[in-house]
Amino acid sequence: MITSTGNQQMKEILQLQKKSKARWEQRVFVVEGPKMVFEVPKEHLVKLYVSESFLENPYERRNLESYGCGYETVSDSVIKSVSDTKTPQGVLALVKMPSYPLEDLYEISFSCENREPLKNGAAQQIPASPKAPHLLILESIQDPGNLGTIFRTGEGAGIGGIIMNRTTVDLFHPKVIRATMGSVFRVPFYITEDLREVVQEIKCKNIKVYAAHLEGRMCYDQPDYTKGCAFLIGNEGNGLTPELASMADAYIRIPMEGKVESLNAAIAAALLTYEVNRQRR
Amino acid sequence: MITSTGNQQMKEILQLQKKSKARWEQRVFVVEGPKMVFEVPKEHLVKLYVSESFLENPYERRNLESYGCGYETVSDSVIKSVSDTKTPQGVLALVKMPSYPLEDLYEISFSCENREPLKNGAAQQIPASPKAPHLLILESIQDPGNLGTIFRTGEGAGIGGIIMNRTTVDLFHPKVIRATMGSVFRVPFYITEDLREVVQEIKCKNIKVYAAHLEGRMCYDQPDYTKGCAFLIGNEGNGLTPELASMADAYIRIPMEGKVESLNAAIAAALLTYEVNRQRR
Repeated sequence: MITSTGNQQMKEILQLQKKSKARWEQRVFVVEGPKMVFEVPKEHLVKLYVSESFLENPYERRNLESYGCGYETVSDSVIKSVSDTKTPQGVLALVKMPSYPLEDLYEISFSCENREPLKNGAAQQIPASPKAPHLLILESIQDPGNLGTIFRTGEGAGIGGIIMNRTTVDLFHPKVIRATMGSVFRVPFYITEDLREVVQEIKCKNIKVYAAHLEGRMCYDQPDYTKGCAFLIGNEGNGLTPELASMADAYIRIPMEGKVESLNAAIAAALLTYEVNRQRR
Repeated sequence: MITSTGNQQMKEILQLQKKSKARWEQRVFVVEGPKMVFEVPKEHLVKLYVSESFLENPYERRNLESYGCGYETVSDSVIKSVSDTKTPQGVLALVKMPSYPLEDLYEISFSCENREPLKNGAAQQIPASPKAPHLLILESIQDPGNLGTIFRTGEGAGIGGIIMNRTTVDLFHPKVIRATMGSVFRVPFYITEDLREVVQEIKCKNIKVYAAHLEGRMCYDQPDYTKGCAFLIGNEGNGLTPELASMADAYIRIPMEGKVESLNAAIAAALLTYEVNRQRR
């Protein structure tokens, strides 16, 4: 059992919690709490740490056993010292960062209904009702809660993936991970130095690019989103840069009553992606 | 000029920042930053504090002068010590809490287009296109950012008001105020000990009450919201209590793809209120 905060593994966890650079050098991040940890795909799990009192809880222990991976025990006070939350939940995992090629985000995907088991038990994809591409493109989103919520809501709305630039807050920041509620393991993403290059590539694939923009004339529910579409969402304070916004096929706006000047970035993303969901239902 | 953190007024501001009890005893709260402070209705302003360097900025000084209220100067370090943010913006106001009778939230309201000036310059309300009631009812929302965002988005969607119980996070918490982006001054609200009593009262006014509920069968965009409507939004972790949910006229659900079990409370509120906005446009 690890009982000292001076333990080398604990020191490394603390670095991973605090420093984006450490996370990206090792391509490893920290996930906390049973709800999130037990959703970590096993092939991505690097190491599992569990506190003494977590093990003493029969319910949690059962969940741990059904997850079925080896773990190291840590004293309650030490796990608290490396936790990013005020009330740590006694379980913490080191996890390999997932990574996707850009094509995975926009290539025609197939909904679950289309995966029919073959006789040998393997799944088969029947291209009966392919899902048209549906993407979010984030420029320099800064709030960890916003980025996490965009992943969570995006999964709910059925998007194919999220593209973001390097100046967006680190996806593997503990607060972002927490706010995704597990969607970080399920929504494909792509991080780029140059959003404009990626937008150019997407446009070549016949995906219409819409900019959520205060200067938009067209209401966001007017375009036809049953075909491939992508939405540009800008930074919380400054919106989209003119260079990126100018690449959009169309500007759209979300109507606002009262004296509201703009909506929160995660709210805007939710309204747009759920409008696509509504049209495709 | 105030130059000591021991100053009695500064001590009181610190209490108001930190303690809900102090705020409600005095019915006063703190607003920070030029964007929010200069939106404070003058009749609600109790006192205005400005830092030295704020006064030295010609642009900010012009805004201060056009706001046109007396102020007290505070040294930069002292204003920093009473600020709730890491990078204080040099202006801070003590503000009287607004308060509304319940009827203000649901009585037929008139959109701005209907306020035509009379010949003597006074505004006249023409009951040509009355707005049907449109309310949000929040049960024990805990996250300050969520509550603030619900106010901001609600104003954008054109709601008539927000009802919440006392176990909802304090509306006048500095983080909530910040997240409202000024909507706290413009969206009528009502805080109650007993949400069930209020829901009963609302139902008597012919306002349909919908519960956003995981057990809902009807998709949220199916009901007709052109008539009066209200939405029950539950606590982030536990959802609605069965006692409150059972009072709804109908359960509705927001469809979710992937493995998403629920949406963030502010996101759910946004999707519902903007669906009303869409139907009434």
